[in-house]
Amino acid sequence: MAILFQNVTAVLMDDAGTVLKGAFVAVEGDKILSVGAQRPEGAFDEVVDGAGKVLMPGLVNAHTHVPMTMMRGYGDGHDLHDWLQNFIFPVEDKWDARAIRAAAALGLCEMIASGTTCLADMYMFCDEICQEVAAAGINANIARGVTAFAEGVSFDTHPSCVETRALADRWHGHNGGQIKIDACLHGEYTSFASPAVWDGLAEYAREKGLGMHVHISETRSEHEDCVGRWGMTPVQVLEKHGVWDVRAIAAHCVWTTPDDWAILAEHGVSAVHNPCSNLKLGSGIAPVIGLRKAGVNVALGTDGVSSNNTTDLFEDMKIAAMLQNGAQQDPLALLPMDALRMATVNGARALGRNTGRIAPGCDADLILVDFGRLNLIPCHDVVSNLVYAAHGCDVVMNMCRGKVIYRNGDFLTIDIERVKREVADYALPLLFG
Amino acid sequence: MAILFQNVTAVLMDDAGTVLKGAFVAVEGDKILSVGAQRPEGAFDEVVDGAGKVLMPGLVNAHTHVPMTMMRGYGDGHDLHDWLQNFIFPVEDKWDARAIRAAAALGLCEMIASGTTCLADMYMFCDEICQEVAAAGINANIARGVTAFAEGVSFDTHPSCVETRALADRWHGHNGGQIKIDACLHGEYTSFASPAVWDGLAEYAREKGLGMHVHISETRSEHEDCVGRWGMTPVQVLEKHGVWDVRAIAAHCVWTTPDDWAILAEHGVSAVHNPCSNLKLGSGIAPVIGLRKAGVNVALGTDGVSSNNTTDLFEDMKIAAMLQNGAQQDPLALLPMDALRMATVNGARALGRNTGRIAPGCDADLILVDFGRLNLIPCHDVVSNLVYAAHGCDVVMNMCRGKVIYRNGDFLTIDIERVKREVADYALPLLFG
Repeated sequence: MAILFQNVTAVLMDDAGTVLKGAFVAVEGDKILSVGAQRPEGAFDEVVDGAGKVLMPGLVNAHTHVPMTMMRGYGDGHDLHDWLQNFIFPVEDKWDARAIRAAAALGLCEMIASGTTCLADMYMFCDEICQEVAAAGINANIARGVTAFAEGVSFDTHPSCVETRALADRWHGHNGGQIKIDACLHGEYTSFASPAVWDGLAEYAREKGLGMHVHISETRSEHEDCVGRWGMTPVQVLEKHGVWDVRAIAAHCVWTTPDDWAILAEHGVSAVHNPCSNLKLGSGIAPVIGLRKAGVNVALGTDGVSSNNTTDLFEDMKIAAMLQNGAQQDPLALLPMDALRMATVNGARALGRNTGRIAPGCDADLILVDFGRLNLIPCHDVVSNLVYAAHGCDVVMNMCRGKVIYRNGDFLTIDIERVKREVADYALPLLFG
Repeated sequence: MAILFQNVTAVLMDDAGTVLKGAFVAVEGDKILSVGAQRPEGAFDEVVDGAGKVLMPGLVNAHTHVPMTMMRGYGDGHDLHDWLQNFIFPVEDKWDARAIRAAAALGLCEMIASGTTCLADMYMFCDEICQEVAAAGINANIARGVTAFAEGVSFDTHPSCVETRALADRWHGHNGGQIKIDACLHGEYTSFASPAVWDGLAEYAREKGLGMHVHISETRSEHEDCVGRWGMTPVQVLEKHGVWDVRAIAAHCVWTTPDDWAILAEHGVSAVHNPCSNLKLGSGIAPVIGLRKAGVNVALGTDGVSSNNTTDLFEDMKIAAMLQNGAQQDPLALLPMDALRMATVNGARALGRNTGRIAPGCDADLILVDFGRLNLIPCHDVVSNLVYAAHGCDVVMNMCRGKVIYRNGDFLTIDIERVKREVADYALPLLFG
């Protein structure tokens, strides 16, 4: 299958920040074949006219929990302890495979419709999530959060570790890399009773060539309790156990210190900023400027819907761009192009993927944004409009690995009506009935 | 004309925070006639079935500069001084009546499509803005920003003051109150050379029964320079000149002090929070919690598009709700219902209007939000979904004063294609050519 986008404004996300007007972008199979100002040679199965539209790399949501879409707004307005103990955890106890699949499909649809082509998920029932990801056609790094609440937990026998290995054996590298499995330590605060699990998980990731996904210093108490236990921050204590020796995603990093940033930079660990979640839950404002200056790759995530409460990454991108300016009282603290890189190329690096740019050989993960929408008129600056003025609902096409999976409101790989029925008739009564 | 909404979920915005499912809301002429769980007696010209939708008061954008929609993203990425001196001011010098009308219409359309039914505008060429507001059918408080950069400026003769009086004479109370004219001091920092103008403007507002609209303590330097000049903050020095003796809108209030809050509360002045603008421009984070605790009515605004860069008030509502939680590190600092009040009832109070609620006798300023959209499924909490998960593009109907002016993407009072042509063929070449 070969597809040509013509007469489009292409945001390449190269180092120069090129925005190419009247561009031709050719896709063959699952890769971008060429990009340029001239029509390329060759025959195409489909030609998409992009007049009035912007073609850009699909967004990378580098930290989320897709099935939590089912808890949208559930328990909002209660304090964190009450919210977790009396709303979230009791519901999570009721999941079954069918409900998870409905929830995952619903969450993926929201992401696809708002321009995400790639995500890093951390949850449970991951085999079911992989099945929905595989069917939807979106790219995903899937991770089973490993926890160890008791002493003496072993990497060999704990269910979350057993599941991780089964998951990697079954799904890692699926469909040419559409699905990757990351090793995943849920967090220091949910596993400190058995640090041997950290060693086992880190060793496993190194041996299997997997990435690592960890919650880090999201809340002040999480961070400070760790310092109290070990005399070291979460970043520091996990470094001693080899957790950062593979490509890794450190989600949140709100309370990380300059010493932490040096460690993350040295190991090439990516920090994932989740501005909506951090603000809404009162976690604080992550030191994005400090992380970036220290040389840390900073990507962007929505976190789960229950703490956001959407997965429209355009919204997080705008808030990320504005928030640092406001917090630093500097209108140039984070420029629109910085935020756009966080949501594309930086996310690709965090997930270990050849995406996030429009260049020959990259995965053909592309979205079209309709610049005829009122909120995008006039257009003095394409990047500024994308970051500050576009909404997810302005996305009119989502292509993952060369395949169009969403176009003008229609899902081409998912039966959305079936998903809605499963949510309404099965998942909601099971979880909340 | 009598219209009945039936089988709808109605968010009343009463003191109890009532969300009425299966509601009937009747509109007659420009007023809400009844609201209840039973079908009211009488015949209706139109019955709107609201199944799967939420009916709520239209949003009140309590501080904006509509024609600045034409500068969307223009000069983004430059420091504030460079941005104003080399981008914004030179463009503003080129406005003519035709370009302003095109720009105003474009801006109003974006607001209408995203659920705003009422706005408070501050700009110039206000007669032209009033003509577009009148035609569009949206409610607006229009204000000509009075400035006095030279000593000896007189309220009787300065063009901005002359225009204010002509504007009030022509438009105040137009169409039963659809348009109100507010007196408007652009700011202390743009008029301190001739404080006699403050006295003249304040006296004029009192005599004519007009409201007042002022930029207050938006930036640290504006606030501190004022203290250096007068030994008083902007709120304090303007109080001495009677500026707060009428219903008044104090836009921004980022650097206001507890003493200022007491003055604002005592005079019943409304503070307008513009979170996107304040963050993006690096102005800071307004003390919304402090203002509210001091008893100040806090409303919500988008500010002009050039500093936001949209007028989707749903976005500002979400950011307002999250930002205080993050800044205070308290997930309960500002609840979803608090943010929804800011964008509805509090805005109505700021603008001196009988709107922002669904109750008999209120202006019939109503919007329908489609809760069948993916980002609003599931719905555990209507208010939480509206504040945290809804986007302006989920609005499927906008009714102002009993008249539907927008439905399912169509503008019923504005020829949007003509507006786009005027913007592209006339205004853009004139201003930026």
